[in-house]
Amino acid sequence: MAKRLLRSLTGEAVWPPPVWLMRQAGRYLPEYRDVRARAGGFIELCTTPALAEEVTLQPLRRFGFDAAILFSDILLLPWALGQDLRYGDGEGPVLAPIRDAAGLAALRSEGVPGALAAVMETLRRLRSSVGDVALIGFAGGPFTVACYMVEGCGAREWSAARLLAWRDPPLFSALLELLTEQTIYYLLAQIEAGAEAVMLFDSCAGLAAPSMFRAYVAAPSARIIAALRARHPEVPVIGFPRRAGCLVGEFVAATGVDGIGLDTSWDPAMAAATLPRRVAIQGNLDPLALVAGGAVLQRETEAILAAMRGRPFIFNLGHGIVPETPLEHVAALMARLRAA
Amino acid sequence: MAKRLLRSLTGEAVWPPPVWLMRQAGRYLPEYRDVRARAGGFIELCTTPALAEEVTLQPLRRFGFDAAILFSDILLLPWALGQDLRYGDGEGPVLAPIRDAAGLAALRSEGVPGALAAVMETLRRLRSSVGDVALIGFAGGPFTVACYMVEGCGAREWSAARLLAWRDPPLFSALLELLTEQTIYYLLAQIEAGAEAVMLFDSCAGLAAPSMFRAYVAAPSARIIAALRARHPEVPVIGFPRRAGCLVGEFVAATGVDGIGLDTSWDPAMAAATLPRRVAIQGNLDPLALVAGGAVLQRETEAILAAMRGRPFIFNLGHGIVPETPLEHVAALMARLRAA
Repeated sequence: MAKRLLRSLTGEAVWPPPVWLMRQAGRYLPEYRDVRARAGGFIELCTTPALAEEVTLQPLRRFGFDAAILFSDILLLPWALGQDLRYGDGEGPVLAPIRDAAGLAALRSEGVPGALAAVMETLRRLRSSVGDVALIGFAGGPFTVACYMVEGCGAREWSAARLLAWRDPPLFSALLELLTEQTIYYLLAQIEAGAEAVMLFDSCAGLAAPSMFRAYVAAPSARIIAALRARHPEVPVIGFPRRAGCLVGEFVAATGVDGIGLDTSWDPAMAAATLPRRVAIQGNLDPLALVAGGAVLQRETEAILAAMRGRPFIFNLGHGIVPETPLEHVAALMARLRAA
Repeated sequence: MAKRLLRSLTGEAVWPPPVWLMRQAGRYLPEYRDVRARAGGFIELCTTPALAEEVTLQPLRRFGFDAAILFSDILLLPWALGQDLRYGDGEGPVLAPIRDAAGLAALRSEGVPGALAAVMETLRRLRSSVGDVALIGFAGGPFTVACYMVEGCGAREWSAARLLAWRDPPLFSALLELLTEQTIYYLLAQIEAGAEAVMLFDSCAGLAAPSMFRAYVAAPSARIIAALRARHPEVPVIGFPRRAGCLVGEFVAATGVDGIGLDTSWDPAMAAATLPRRVAIQGNLDPLALVAGGAVLQRETEAILAAMRGRPFIFNLGHGIVPETPLEHVAALMARLRAA
C-alpha cells in the first residue's frame, strides 16, 4: 500500500489528509537548536549526512508527520556551482552577487556532483530510516535561485534581480538555463538516492510580472518536470510558485505538476473550485495562526479542511513554520487533523 | 465635459486611456529632489501647502499626466493621531510601535483636523491649479496603516502586525475601527477641499490570509466607501489591495469600488476577462520595465493596452515609480500611450 502522501499526489482524496509543515525541521524545535549549535555552520549541517538525517527525522519523532523533507537549502546549488555563500547569525544568507557575464562565467558545473554528494548520502540514509512516511526531496525554482544569486541576499522587492531580467535577457536566460539543467541533474540524483516525491520552491515567483513569470517561472518548471518524468514517471512533483496569485492556474496547466503548494493568500474554497481536481492542493494555513493557537488556529484549520474534503489534498502551512511557534500548538493541530 | 480620468471611473472606455503613475511626484524627478532638499523633513514637505502643491504639479508640467495626486503619505494619519513618526534618510518611515491597549489609548482623534488642515489647504490650492486634469486624494487602507502602526516600520512579512491581529482581535479591531472612522473623516475632508476622486492604498493587503482580508481589508474599505458615497456619490473611489491575488474579485464585489488598482503580478488579459466591466481597471506596468525601457517597455505596454482596449481603464504602474527611472523612458511611455 502506497504511503498516504504519495496517494494524495496520485489524485486520491486521502482522508484524514496527510500533513507535513514547511520548515518542520527548524528553530522552533529545541532538539534542532541543539544540533544546529553543535554543527558549526549551516552549510556544514546541510552537508554532514548524520546531522542532516538527524534533523530531518526530529519533527517526525515528535509529531508523526506524513512526510520527511530532506534537510537542506535552496542555495546549496549556487554554492555547489562555486558562488560564495555565507549564513550570518539570524541574518539570512549572503552570496557574492552575480550581475554580469563574468560572474556567470565563473560558475562551474563540474563541481556540482561532488559538492552535493553528501546530500545524496543523507537521502540514502533517510530512505531506510523514514519508515512509512514519504521522503520528499527538493530544489529551489530556478527563478528564485537566480533572484538570490543576482541580488546577493534576501530582499523585499528583488529589484536588482528583476531589473537584470528586464535589462539583459540573454544573461538572465543563460543563468536560468544553467540553473534549469543543474536542477534537473540535482533532482534526478535526489530521486535516485531515495526521494519519493520532489518539490520546487519558487518563493519569488509572485514578484514576476506575467511575461517574466511565463519565461522564468513556468517554462523552466515545465522543463524540469518533463525531464524528471521522462526518467521517473512514478515520482510526483509539487510546485510552489509562492504569491503567484491568479497565475497559479496557468502554472498548473503549463507544468503538469502533481501537487500545487498554495501560499497563505489563497482562499481554500476558491482554490478547490478553480484548480483542476487531478492536482493535489498543498497548504495553506498561515504560520502566524499556528503561533497564535487557540480559537484562531481552530477556525483557520476548519476552513481549510471544509474546502478540501473530498479532493486530493495535503495539509501544510502557506509559508515556513516560524521559530516562535509553540510546540503545543503543533501538537493540537496534529490532533485535530488526525481526527478529521 | 468631464475630465478623462473621471470618465473612465464612471465606466466609460476612454481611449487613448488616461494615465498617471503611482509616486509620479518623487525622487526620479530632479525638480522634486531640489524641493525635497529645501523642505527640511518629509513631514514638513507634506504639510507645507506651497511645497506640497509644487511637487504635486511638477510631473504634470513635465509629462502631462491625466491626474494629479495629492503629494502626501499614508502615515500622515497615524502622525495626526499622535503616533511618533520619523523619516530617516532613504531608510523609510519609523514609528513608535503600538502593541497594546495603552498604545492604542494614547492615540488622540481630537488633534486630527488641526494636524491635517495643511493637507486640505494643499488640495484647495491644487483644485484651482490643476486645470483640466483630475485631482486625486488618498489615504492608506486601514489594514496597511495598522500594519505600519504596529510594526513600527516597513517589513517584509509584517509578522508583528499580523500576529497581533490573530492574537488580540479586540485590540486589532479597535485600532481598525479608529482608523476606519478617521479615514472616513480624512477622505471626506479631502473631497470637500477639492479631491475629485480618492484612492485607498492597501499595500499590505496581500499578506492577509482570506479571513483576515475579509475582516480587515474588505470590510473596512466597504464601510469607508459607503460613507463617502452617502455624502458624495459623485466622487469615485479607487481601491488598491496590493498583492491580494485571487481575492481581488471578492474585494471589488464587497466594496463596490469604481476603480481597482492591480499590482504587477496580475495578468491584464485575465483581469479583463474576470473583473466586472463596470469597474475601471488601473495598472499595472512593472516599474522596473519602465527603468529598463526599450523593447521590454514597449512589449509590456502593448500587452496591457491590448488587454484593456474597449473597457474602462486607467494606465498606471503596478507599484510606485522608482528613483532610478530615466526621465526619457517616462516620456517614451507617454508618447506611446497618447498614440494608442
